[in-house]
Amino acid sequence: MASNSFGNLFRITTWGESHGKAIGVVIDGCPAGISLNEADIQEELKFRAPGANPYTSPRKEEDHAEILSGVFEGKTTGTPISIILYNKDVDTSKYEPIKDVLRPGHANYTYLKKYGIFDYRGGGRASGRETACRVAAGALAKKILNLKGIKILAYLKQISSLQTQIPLETISQENVRKSPLFCPDPEIEAQMISLLTEIKEKGDSVGGVVAFYVTGVPVGLGDPIYEKIEANLAKGLLSIPASKGFEIGSGFEGALWRGSQHNDPFIPQENGIATSSNHSGGLLGGITTGMPLFGKVAFKPPSSIQLPQKTTTIAGVETTLELPQGSRHDPCLAIRAVPVVEAMIALVLVDSLLLSNGYP
Amino acid sequence: MASNSFGNLFRITTWGESHGKAIGVVIDGCPAGISLNEADIQEELKFRAPGANPYTSPRKEEDHAEILSGVFEGKTTGTPISIILYNKDVDTSKYEPIKDVLRPGHANYTYLKKYGIFDYRGGGRASGRETACRVAAGALAKKILNLKGIKILAYLKQISSLQTQIPLETISQENVRKSPLFCPDPEIEAQMISLLTEIKEKGDSVGGVVAFYVTGVPVGLGDPIYEKIEANLAKGLLSIPASKGFEIGSGFEGALWRGSQHNDPFIPQENGIATSSNHSGGLLGGITTGMPLFGKVAFKPPSSIQLPQKTTTIAGVETTLELPQGSRHDPCLAIRAVPVVEAMIALVLVDSLLLSNGYP
Amino acid sequence: MASNSFGNLFRITTWGESHGKAIGVVIDGCPAGISLNEADIQEELKFRAPGANPYTSPRKEEDHAEILSGVFEGKTTGTPISIILYNKDVDTSKYEPIKDVLRPGHANYTYLKKYGIFDYRGGGRASGRETACRVAAGALAKKILNLKGIKILAYLKQISSLQTQIPLETISQENVRKSPLFCPDPEIEAQMISLLTEIKEKGDSVGGVVAFYVTGVPVGLGDPIYEKIEANLAKGLLSIPASKGFEIGSGFEGALWRGSQHNDPFIPQENGIATSSNHSGGLLGGITTGMPLFGKVAFKPPSSIQLPQKTTTIAGVETTLELPQGSRHDPCLAIRAVPVVEAMIALVLVDSLLLSNGYP
Amino acid sequence: MASNSFGNLFRITTWGESHGKAIGVVIDGCPAGISLNEADIQEELKFRAPGANPYTSPRKEEDHAEILSGVFEGKTTGTPISIILYNKDVDTSKYEPIKDVLRPGHANYTYLKKYGIFDYRGGGRASGRETACRVAAGALAKKILNLKGIKILAYLKQISSLQTQIPLETISQENVRKSPLFCPDPEIEAQMISLLTEIKEKGDSVGGVVAFYVTGVPVGLGDPIYEKIEANLAKGLLSIPASKGFEIGSGFEGALWRGSQHNDPFIPQENGIATSSNHSGGLLGGITTGMPLFGKVAFKPPSSIQLPQKTTTIAGVETTLELPQGSRHDPCLAIRAVPVVEAMIALVLVDSLLLSNGYP
Repeated sequence: MASNSFGNLFRITTWGESHGKAIGVVIDGCPAGISLNEADIQEELKFRAPGANPYTSPRKEEDHAEILSGVFEGKTTGTPISIILYNKDVDTSKYEPIKDVLRPGHANYTYLKKYGIFDYRGGGRASGRETACRVAAGALAKKILNLKGIKILAYLKQISSLQTQIPLETISQENVRKSPLFCPDPEIEAQMISLLTEIKEKGDSVGGVVAFYVTGVPVGLGDPIYEKIEANLAKGLLSIPASKGFEIGSGFEGALWRGSQHNDPFIPQENGIATSSNHSGGLLGGITTGMPLFGKVAFKPPSSIQLPQKTTTIAGVETTLELPQGSRHDPCLAIRAVPVVEAMIALVLVDSLLLSNGYP
Repeated sequence: MASNSFGNLFRITTWGESHGKAIGVVIDGCPAGISLNEADIQEELKFRAPGANPYTSPRKEEDHAEILSGVFEGKTTGTPISIILYNKDVDTSKYEPIKDVLRPGHANYTYLKKYGIFDYRGGGRASGRETACRVAAGALAKKILNLKGIKILAYLKQISSLQTQIPLETISQENVRKSPLFCPDPEIEAQMISLLTEIKEKGDSVGGVVAFYVTGVPVGLGDPIYEKIEANLAKGLLSIPASKGFEIGSGFEGALWRGSQHNDPFIPQENGIATSSNHSGGLLGGITTGMPLFGKVAFKPPSSIQLPQKTTTIAGVETTLELPQGSRHDPCLAIRAVPVVEAMIALVLVDSLLLSNGYP
Repeated sequence: MASNSFGNLFRITTWGESHGKAIGVVIDGCPAGISLNEADIQEELKFRAPGANPYTSPRKEEDHAEILSGVFEGKTTGTPISIILYNKDVDTSKYEPIKDVLRPGHANYTYLKKYGIFDYRGGGRASGRETACRVAAGALAKKILNLKGIKILAYLKQISSLQTQIPLETISQENVRKSPLFCPDPEIEAQMISLLTEIKEKGDSVGGVVAFYVTGVPVGLGDPIYEKIEANLAKGLLSIPASKGFEIGSGFEGALWRGSQHNDPFIPQENGIATSSNHSGGLLGGITTGMPLFGKVAFKPPSSIQLPQKTTTIAGVETTLELPQGSRHDPCLAIRAVPVVEAMIALVLVDSLLLSNGYP
Repeated sequence: MASNSFGNLFRITTWGESHGKAIGVVIDGCPAGISLNEADIQEELKFRAPGANPYTSPRKEEDHAEILSGVFEGKTTGTPISIILYNKDVDTSKYEPIKDVLRPGHANYTYLKKYGIFDYRGGGRASGRETACRVAAGALAKKILNLKGIKILAYLKQISSLQTQIPLETISQENVRKSPLFCPDPEIEAQMISLLTEIKEKGDSVGGVVAFYVTGVPVGLGDPIYEKIEANLAKGLLSIPASKGFEIGSGFEGALWRGSQHNDPFIPQENGIATSSNHSGGLLGGITTGMPLFGKVAFKPPSSIQLPQKTTTIAGVETTLELPQGSRHDPCLAIRAVPVVEAMIALVLVDSLLLSNGYP
């Protein structure tokens, strides 16, 4: 099945393997007249790029995005925008010795069983590198959303049990992006850095949680029943590699509450109606209330670790997997997932926005 | 946007308002030759029906499903199967006095802002009654999955802080379905019943969590990148009214772990390869590993409560909402959501199964 | 595959067999606030209904459409509109003796090979009766288009070699609809009636051509490349049973011309730009020019004839098919196809209109 | 709207403008394990390339296709196959002086009205150059179809009134492809060459008709109602630039016939059932009968001619368009459309094949 596209009216299609010639994305359905250049995309890509800090993988990929079509004289034309990122700094030799070993937590087993063939070099198509394409497309989606005053913010909320409780309203994109961990709480960030250092030294990895917060959302976005905004957010965010959970509004904590606590009372406002609390996370019946959207995404610890692991070969023979010395892996994927979470939210919302244009 | 369909090759389209003439579902893409009669559907519907026990809404709806097309001489023919459920026991008079009041936690505000018109009677299209159509379609999806040995089990895991820790492997569908709460743990069930009685007396409501467990899943189902099984499960389950969170495998707890604990080691088996643990929840790269799928869905407390609530009218005038005496509402939606969760999982998996048929 | 839906934002899903309990259509994605009642639909259905005149099948089906959902207080609500048409005047006994005979020109052979099962009664799902659902949905689509000033007109242009050359601009819907053959040219109509009488007496059937003409189309509707208006018209019209050909603008005749004749010169107009001729049929690059759309659809002669026909049984044994005396069939499908052609064009255009709303 | 994709399970997405950096196609949903290299694609592309003979445009584009992803060790992997064709021999200077002139028969007017912006260089996205991407993707589709014994043949049947009546069964791909006009009838070909020479000298252009013939089609392919094979063929073929008409089987001629002539009698065969004639064109109810598919596509004369043409500027001021001396244009698009017609048919059929895999 064609499974490499996301979105309806604003649809992206990504392609490419981690260690192939290039990866890329085609953005179809972007409105005409949006100003766009490669620097706009680069600005977002640099936050996802590995090697940006000691706590992410030291690979020195330069995710350089080149626009091949769909932009004329600095503006989008309504035709497909093709963006390519060539793969550089690619060394496949490290994957050769382990190509017949099933890597715990990785997808080589399932791809092999499904397709009978797998480009094992650097994780192939299943590599997190695919998410660079999401971020590139998300950069454009964000530009459109910004024109409507919609702002998306994601940040690292939790690594292992270290968790910031900093109120959503106080967090700025600047504070998030200047943190090497995308964590806007300096105190927790310091503890996280200690933990990451320790985990890296051990050759292990750790899970984490990314939170998001979207402001400036107009009331009436989204479609009911099967295309609820939260349903599409859930799909988009659970399509990110290593994600294991999703919450909107009160999430799992909401299960603990009484209705009399959870229901958000409507209150009159100067320019309409708001709610005095926002446990729903800005959505009722799948449609936006005009209050901010917020929620969380859980990420498992990265599967690539330096510690030896029991496993089998493709043929089912027991063996021990030891990644070669000097393999470069992230100790915590949730860090680099922050811009990817933003991108997927942007893709969901821009699609809803275009779908709602006819029904103001 | 057309938002009332779910699925690709096996696609359902539901229609109908809570207090209109009828609700229904069209199932398109069902393979031919599956034996099907109305009793098959009725069997599933009765578990979702309200009034089955004192802990769900006392409405005496008889969800009687009538098959109008697509079945000939007891077998599906490959053409669309139209199922209709007439609305009976409908009393719209109770909704008349509150039709201009915004009901906290309900969708009348957002529908009104989106569409400018809302069939307020019984919650209209936004009513949980729509889920009867999902269960009817799910009954057929389950029949197809059962032919392949795939079995889906959901149960009530938690109400407020009361939570069963009963191991997944020990739970049988029989034990779940004979419990009025769909909770297979008699001890916790008894505590839940006390809590629900207390909450009902107070006119309040409470949230809960439904867990699911799918066995007999072959390896290689699902599609990578944007159509991962977990992404489609997340979308399907977050499209259920009142759902606020989703987990697959280790979920949010997985964020606490180390990679060395979380990675599931591959081990040889008589007929192939398995993993000795299953923290991934049976999925790697979005494709099934052959291990059971498991996860959870969080539900907020029902928004309809007897207690008075501050709110505004549609016009933005402050008022207090008091539902009329004798209004019939569920104290905890998670109970009746159990068969709906099973249905949505069945719809996701049968679609994956049909999509994978060409790639055994 | 789910193949019973048509349209993107305005999507219909039809269901039902000719001699089952009912047939119906679910319209999803209709904008809210459109006034709609059953009489609106009935008005269109009566033109497709058989038995309206001696030149169509004498079956006395009353295509009575009942709206089951999606309309509240006389207006559409944005939720799915379910319309049901019960099957009356159904006599399946005539189909019993020929149920194992392959009927030349009919679909029972291909359905059987594809699905292994076929509801043979009255042609089952493959019956032209399904088109009543298209007409019902088309009635709503036309209402929306009319609000924008878009008017769709189809008429019978040709039966066998009898062909009207009446200029498009002179044809009115009134003149078409008052003709029992939907032919606005009384002279040709009289000749057609003679031919049909002769053909009916012989127990034979004849092919025909339906022409269409759409005025009031704004410039800029439609999407380029794979979703060109003419491509979607071609798909919609070739999905009508018995259709064998489609032309837009100059059509096959255009192949005879020189570019210097065919190119439509642009000319200034009071309110913009027009073309002085319209060989393109109102479309350039798949997008409307603002000039009228026009074209043609060819229909083969109906496959059901009274004359004996050589064929085989399902088992491959040679036999002769003789339909029972008194079987009721159309001598020329193109007549009753006229309202169906209008409906399919309306469905294509309303979808384009909704898709273009965001890009005025 | 995202309109640059075609197909369901085997889905292509094309991108790129005629005079931009490159054009390309992403093929998503191709089964794994198909052997594929760049030469396979080049082999098909060379037939579409301009400059292959004096009767097509003398531009010396080398349509060199480079595979960027989805192929590993010479085989497809089930992941998206990205193919890029860099634009060479691009001279945009000729378009500069006429950039504000509406070109009769071209899409710059409609694109401008729809999008407000148009990359006018070489026709931008609306250029026939986009069809190179269709041919590249079609090359892969054909490889898959060939594995099942399905062979697609298209040829030039008609230019102006010169028309070959050579029987379909006698035509071989070799004979077609060795003709510079893709016309397998040497006598008609000679007349066509004379006509083309004359038309070129006059600076004019001419229309034509491409016929197609598909053998080896199994019975039971395709889906009924809205996804009939002929409906999808019609859409695919009417999406080719300059196409104005489509016929399947008897087409418009079928309108002239009696049912007793048109109905194809079923006859027993050694390995099943066939029909003794094939007026239906190999399709009943939208599903293949196992007989060959055949039909025709009409193409208008190319809009780019050397003769002066009356038109207006974008601002609506009357002017005369004269293309600069030495502009390079095709006198008849139907010639180069031959491989594009084959490609679109291949894309429709490979999608049907994958959709039918589960229902043999």
